[in-house]
Amino acid sequence: MEPASVWKERWESATLPMARQYMELATQKQSLVCLAADRPTMKQLNDLLDAVHPYIVALKTHVDMVDDWTPEAWGAFCKKANDLDLLIFEDRKFADIGKISEKQMLGLYNIASWSDLVTAHLISGPDIVDGIQSAWEGKGRSGGVLLLAQMSSRGNLLIPTYTATVAEHGSKHPGVFGFIGNGSQPSGISELRKLVGNSKLIWTPGINLATGDGAKGQRYGDPYEAVLSGSDCIIVGSGIHGKDDPAMEAAKYAQASWKGITER
Amino acid sequence: MEPASVWKERWESATLPMARQYMELATQKQSLVCLAADRPTMKQLNDLLDAVHPYIVALKTHVDMVDDWTPEAWGAFCKKANDLDLLIFEDRKFADIGKISEKQMLGLYNIASWSDLVTAHLISGPDIVDGIQSAWEGKGRSGGVLLLAQMSSRGNLLIPTYTATVAEHGSKHPGVFGFIGNGSQPSGISELRKLVGNSKLIWTPGINLATGDGAKGQRYGDPYEAVLSGSDCIIVGSGIHGKDDPAMEAAKYAQASWKGITER
Repeated sequence: MEPASVWKERWESATLPMARQYMELATQKQSLVCLAADRPTMKQLNDLLDAVHPYIVALKTHVDMVDDWTPEAWGAFCKKANDLDLLIFEDRKFADIGKISEKQMLGLYNIASWSDLVTAHLISGPDIVDGIQSAWEGKGRSGGVLLLAQMSSRGNLLIPTYTATVAEHGSKHPGVFGFIGNGSQPSGISELRKLVGNSKLIWTPGINLATGDGAKGQRYGDPYEAVLSGSDCIIVGSGIHGKDDPAMEAAKYAQASWKGITER
Repeated sequence: MEPASVWKERWESATLPMARQYMELATQKQSLVCLAADRPTMKQLNDLLDAVHPYIVALKTHVDMVDDWTPEAWGAFCKKANDLDLLIFEDRKFADIGKISEKQMLGLYNIASWSDLVTAHLISGPDIVDGIQSAWEGKGRSGGVLLLAQMSSRGNLLIPTYTATVAEHGSKHPGVFGFIGNGSQPSGISELRKLVGNSKLIWTPGINLATGDGAKGQRYGDPYEAVLSGSDCIIVGSGIHGKDDPAMEAAKYAQASWKGITER
């Protein structure tokens, strides 16, 4: 299938090369799965990547959480991931003004030099998107910013009026790749989709094929329903890397997500 | 003078050792000045520290912005600052859930091992304060979290209802050292002081002895008026490090801030 026919308005109105790149890779792999690669060592990360790469399109990372992180080992890991048609998505949650966020993309971790996507809060103002985009430009790279629009954490302040403001600003900003929504309830995804319109991507964590109550009372959303409701990428963690056969599990999520987008 | 008589309710109701440590140092130095030490090299940072340390109580840093940062050079810089009775305040603007923020305090920069204070947004929920405090505890250290309550950046989303929620949660949380307010208008500081009560500290950037319009239309608040209005620490950047004689300028800010607190 052609990405334009799968993604329709999202493909037509994409403002960033990275958005089309994601849609192309997802179409090619018939998967809308991003793996939350929360593993503490480079070996575990590499083993996971080797096992599941045919079934996923992106890896969500937290560089600070890798105990044996070095620029060399990380560079090799990212190159391997890109060669296997995966995007690297650093979930850094930038939250400063543009000028400072631009610098925070550099530094020891040098996030601008290897990330394809990063998360940011809009709390400090929309200049943060320009600052992050400038950092990628400075490296001769292109990337995309995912704005936090909804969260599921206890006592978070992304209340409906905040979400609406993020949706309003973010849906118009060319440097915005899309939004992070809360995947645990299809109705929440539908509401967010209404707010942001059809031009930008929505990525949703909180997805698991076992939708009952998870550890510590966490609720999960079903991958197929999430995509039907307007999610363009399901972010899955323990549902894949916490299982005995991560590749087999990843294939199930890929299948459910692909069924969702071809039917919506 | 004794800190208890200078700081009154703030001293009595302090929940963190770090809060009393700040108040003791400020009383001893007769200064409520934190220098925004935005210099890009270790040499410039060290030169600045050597010049102004008698007149300031804390250094606000951005580790990602120091071009020649190494753990060794930074460790020596922080040790020298602490030996000169200065607190190190990393303006990291943490904004993830508690579990992730705790890990982000470690990593290559190992912020937990040298910071006395850090900033955080409450956007992802109050567990962030516990996560950051856990990271300091894990290093056998104590520290304090400053929550962003107001900002001055264009299009920021710290609207009055958001500020009120941060004030309400933060004023009750024992791990919260205080709040970052917007120092550019005394009335804004007074309003924030009403919201947070008298128990927690308010630190304010946007302060300059030249209160006219700054670069790019930025407005500055006067140090003396800021403290009279309820600020407990004035954060000054270019007003000190941008001048020919930073030590002489720092002394002026110290004097204005000390006059403010003894008169309020």
